[in-house]
Amino acid sequence: MIQEKKEECGLFGIFGDAEAVQKTYFGLFSLQHRGQESAGIASSNGEFIQRYAGMGTVKRVFRSGSNVLDKLANLMAIGHVRYSTTGSSSYINRQPFLSEYSRGQVAMAHNGNLINASLLRDEYEAYGSIFKSTSDTEIITHLLAKPSHVAKPDPLAHVLNHLQGSYCLLFLFPDRIEAARDPYGIRPLCIGQTEKGAFVVASESCALDATEAKFVREVEPGEIVRLDKDGLSSRFFVKPGSIKPAHCIFEHVYFSKQNSTIFGENVHELRKKFGRQLAIEYPVEADVVTPIPDSGTSAAVGYSEQSKTPFDMGLVRSH
Amino acid sequence: MIQEKKEECGLFGIFGDAEAVQKTYFGLFSLQHRGQESAGIASSNGEFIQRYAGMGTVKRVFRSGSNVLDKLANLMAIGHVRYSTTGSSSYINRQPFLSEYSRGQVAMAHNGNLINASLLRDEYEAYGSIFKSTSDTEIITHLLAKPSHVAKPDPLAHVLNHLQGSYCLLFLFPDRIEAARDPYGIRPLCIGQTEKGAFVVASESCALDATEAKFVREVEPGEIVRLDKDGLSSRFFVKPGSIKPAHCIFEHVYFSKQNSTIFGENVHELRKKFGRQLAIEYPVEADVVTPIPDSGTSAAVGYSEQSKTPFDMGLVRSH
Amino acid sequence: MIQEKKEECGLFGIFGDAEAVQKTYFGLFSLQHRGQESAGIASSNGEFIQRYAGMGTVKRVFRSGSNVLDKLANLMAIGHVRYSTTGSSSYINRQPFLSEYSRGQVAMAHNGNLINASLLRDEYEAYGSIFKSTSDTEIITHLLAKPSHVAKPDPLAHVLNHLQGSYCLLFLFPDRIEAARDPYGIRPLCIGQTEKGAFVVASESCALDATEAKFVREVEPGEIVRLDKDGLSSRFFVKPGSIKPAHCIFEHVYFSKQNSTIFGENVHELRKKFGRQLAIEYPVEADVVTPIPDSGTSAAVGYSEQSKTPFDMGLVRSH
Amino acid sequence: MIQEKKEECGLFGIFGDAEAVQKTYFGLFSLQHRGQESAGIASSNGEFIQRYAGMGTVKRVFRSGSNVLDKLANLMAIGHVRYSTTGSSSYINRQPFLSEYSRGQVAMAHNGNLINASLLRDEYEAYGSIFKSTSDTEIITHLLAKPSHVAKPDPLAHVLNHLQGSYCLLFLFPDRIEAARDPYGIRPLCIGQTEKGAFVVASESCALDATEAKFVREVEPGEIVRLDKDGLSSRFFVKPGSIKPAHCIFEHVYFSKQNSTIFGENVHELRKKFGRQLAIEYPVEADVVTPIPDSGTSAAVGYSEQSKTPFDMGLVRSH
Repeated sequence: MIQEKKEECGLFGIFGDAEAVQKTYFGLFSLQHRGQESAGIASSNGEFIQRYAGMGTVKRVFRSGSNVLDKLANLMAIGHVRYSTTGSSSYINRQPFLSEYSRGQVAMAHNGNLINASLLRDEYEAYGSIFKSTSDTEIITHLLAKPSHVAKPDPLAHVLNHLQGSYCLLFLFPDRIEAARDPYGIRPLCIGQTEKGAFVVASESCALDATEAKFVREVEPGEIVRLDKDGLSSRFFVKPGSIKPAHCIFEHVYFSKQNSTIFGENVHELRKKFGRQLAIEYPVEADVVTPIPDSGTSAAVGYSEQSKTPFDMGLVRSH
Repeated sequence: MIQEKKEECGLFGIFGDAEAVQKTYFGLFSLQHRGQESAGIASSNGEFIQRYAGMGTVKRVFRSGSNVLDKLANLMAIGHVRYSTTGSSSYINRQPFLSEYSRGQVAMAHNGNLINASLLRDEYEAYGSIFKSTSDTEIITHLLAKPSHVAKPDPLAHVLNHLQGSYCLLFLFPDRIEAARDPYGIRPLCIGQTEKGAFVVASESCALDATEAKFVREVEPGEIVRLDKDGLSSRFFVKPGSIKPAHCIFEHVYFSKQNSTIFGENVHELRKKFGRQLAIEYPVEADVVTPIPDSGTSAAVGYSEQSKTPFDMGLVRSH
Repeated sequence: MIQEKKEECGLFGIFGDAEAVQKTYFGLFSLQHRGQESAGIASSNGEFIQRYAGMGTVKRVFRSGSNVLDKLANLMAIGHVRYSTTGSSSYINRQPFLSEYSRGQVAMAHNGNLINASLLRDEYEAYGSIFKSTSDTEIITHLLAKPSHVAKPDPLAHVLNHLQGSYCLLFLFPDRIEAARDPYGIRPLCIGQTEKGAFVVASESCALDATEAKFVREVEPGEIVRLDKDGLSSRFFVKPGSIKPAHCIFEHVYFSKQNSTIFGENVHELRKKFGRQLAIEYPVEADVVTPIPDSGTSAAVGYSEQSKTPFDMGLVRSH
Repeated sequence: MIQEKKEECGLFGIFGDAEAVQKTYFGLFSLQHRGQESAGIASSNGEFIQRYAGMGTVKRVFRSGSNVLDKLANLMAIGHVRYSTTGSSSYINRQPFLSEYSRGQVAMAHNGNLINASLLRDEYEAYGSIFKSTSDTEIITHLLAKPSHVAKPDPLAHVLNHLQGSYCLLFLFPDRIEAARDPYGIRPLCIGQTEKGAFVVASESCALDATEAKFVREVEPGEIVRLDKDGLSSRFFVKPGSIKPAHCIFEHVYFSKQNSTIFGENVHELRKKFGRQLAIEYPVEADVVTPIPDSGTSAAVGYSEQSKTPFDMGLVRSH
């Protein structure tokens, strides 16, 4: 029943900004290339979480004329855009998920792919858990709600250790945001700060630009970053440096936007490097180097530079 | 967090009819007076359950031009209309609920009010269950999924014994419908049969008329009626006759439609009786008896008959 | 090509009220029984007319959540609800029509049926006029725009003399409303006044109640009533009394709401009179008198009164 | 009152194809870069024209789930996408316009700007014409309907001689499409043919590719091309070659898609030429040539080629 294996989604979160929801909208808008299937925002007023999510682009879900954004307006928010996939039951999988468990409400947004989700789901269903979606993300809420996990000193850190696979996760609790990245750092997640001091987390740095936040640093592999009224605090759920990072090469090759800085490198510059290296390793006699736009454009420029083969556009993309 | 205490909703279910979903639409349409807040239908092809539910009237949710009904088309279906209440989070409470647990999918529609829902919810949250809605109906799915319940010879009958309060319940499993009524028979639920032999269950008999089904009988208090490929079968989860029925008087006074037969009596005739009795107990000197339409009209006719006071219309209702 | 022969529509207009558009909405809402096919409002700020119209009920066209009413907000407005008819091209016929001609903008709403519309349309098409709808109402704008008519001292009065058939008409010019009723007074149109002194015109008096306006009088057959910054003024385009009134009996029998006063009589009281007369002219031996609700209810009460046959409800209407 | 001066729109027409409406949808989709404000399609079954148009992109207006395209399905169709402009009254200006005059129905779609529209409109209003839109396109229908024009041997050719300015026009009559281009050839319009022989007209050749039609030739300046059951026929309303063509340079610079052939030249190749020429006329010392994407990319490639300055991407466009 778990149908979703696509890993590319976009995350955005912001704490302590009077325009948190509006900025989440713009942040998601700039991450739209990471997913057009569904979009959603959850926000909290410190005590109560609300959520709205729908199918389609950010613009369509939160369309002008509706007042959904106004209704959600709050000081903290997280948002999610989902990669377009086929499958009739996808409506129930739109994120953020909002649930209630013994500790109250929690909203969650996920970018990644849990390889042990199916196993965990079977196990939890055997113990009586019920599931509302076919997404492997939903199991995380069940892990959080398990009484033996709730009883731990740091339940979230404890839960993350049960997950295998790639994940960047945003949790919105009524009073805080917690942002986590898997120990391998497979998916990107970065931290920014607005001029007025509010902290932002986002899948790509281009979302910081869209909300006029300055890049601070990446969330480290195995790190949990907490945003609350005391600002930003950090802890690790695996020993830093104990696991060798394994960034997903597709972020650099295909997923991310050219103007983002991902895994410490500007995507455009890195793609050019790829192109130059390709020219060295696989030189060809050619009249012209032409990219498959838009993600291939940077690499073609690099190949052209290195090989001295003229660059030209040959294909047009329909937007 | 459980906000919904309103009990008046409408249920409809049908098994083994090529137009099951279309008829569920018409059945819900005729039960629209029982709830305009939301409407939904879940259907099964024998293996897989689909669901669609939205806010507003049946006509609005399944509006012409959309092809939702076509997409749901199947041989068995259940539907639900919900009473209009205030409360911002009501979207998540629209029914039927669709869930997956260790035995597969189940969709559920509820008319009633569980007085121990809050207690059960706390208990289950303490055991790690998570909740997606604020409706007290959701707890029933958790009861069904509990491993010790799943292991029982008749899990459904076992679960119903945990519920306190009023309920008529329709369960759609991939291969069957199960319809249950609480031991007091507080809310109405009746059985009908179409000319071709398909069985129908509905909150009021007016929904049988709307789908050209003949009234067969009421579901008895404490009875579970199962509709599957072998037709209708019945069992009781409490000993029949062990509990004195306690029908909700508001069905006769206000909720039900005049042309329905509820608790063994035609609503219009009964309301007239109420009016006659009122004239006997509380005679007044008056020029005219005038109803508050539409639910009061029958009683006013009865009062007029008994008291020989002329009947007349004095108020107009805006539809 | 002129397909629309149905005459029952609802009109509402108000001048000089800060909530003119909001009140037009409520006025149309109370006239909803006169037409559910389409609804529309045109408003003017004294210089520029805006219009919004759509298919379906007033509530659906101006649905909450959209801000159409806010955008239209102005000191004067007219509105229209249209009777439900079949016909695929009806979208183009929703009213008020908004046009521009040599004297500027004009919006128009019509209740009635012009028997010479087809003739006039052919004639005007032969002279080069183009038509955008299949409604016979559109011809009136062409009559208004004709240069020889524009040149008359009172173009509107001149134009109305060309029309044959039934009509109540509301014209919204940028600076005023003009309301006219055909010389036979076939359709109803009445005048009301709010507590603050703003004038209202409406098809039925129930719309005055809905906007807290007091009934002043009917617009007379052959009269044009002008609402502008100087208040209400009246003129006649046929000599008053020169034509014998010929009210449409269907208003009293079927179209109008029971609580309206139409053609000088309360609809409910008149229908009761009809019922009594029917009992005198056609007495029958019967157990019970039962109406076809809702328009027949008053007559059944009258028949019951006169014949001493008991009144009872026998049919239920699905709203 | 005439507010629209923007000239960039997209046109598509097809005659004699069982999937005419579906192909018009795809044609408009590929011309979406020419206008996102509104989209519309008119189709004819040989006797009766239907039209549907709405605000927003082609995809939004004809959104999946609605069955508008199915309802329009016919053997011939024209479509229009409109450039996004500000202005509250733009809804009434969405095209194609559908009108009825003495010769029956006509639908019309326009790309261009008539410099004498305001003058003609004043003149026609003085003669009694009424206007429903603020678009300068509407005057053309009035010109067609004028009795002295109707009486001409070739009314359409006669009317076109009254127009001053830029225009490509598609007329859908119940039995045929007529496509015209102004004598200067200011806007582009080309002819294509499908494998099965159906003729297509479109603003840009990229729309031929999208509908699997082969480029045949451009519609000539001053030419009327007629598509009917006898295929394609041509006539000229000005003497061919009597007027020096004056193509709009903005088509090559900005409006058209890179893969279109406009005015006899591939847009991408021509933009590269512009870039090379710029490098010759305005050489600069620079590290890099970077385009403003997407329309500037081709020119930057040309500049880079000519100047030997490295090409690189520096800006990212948000789609």
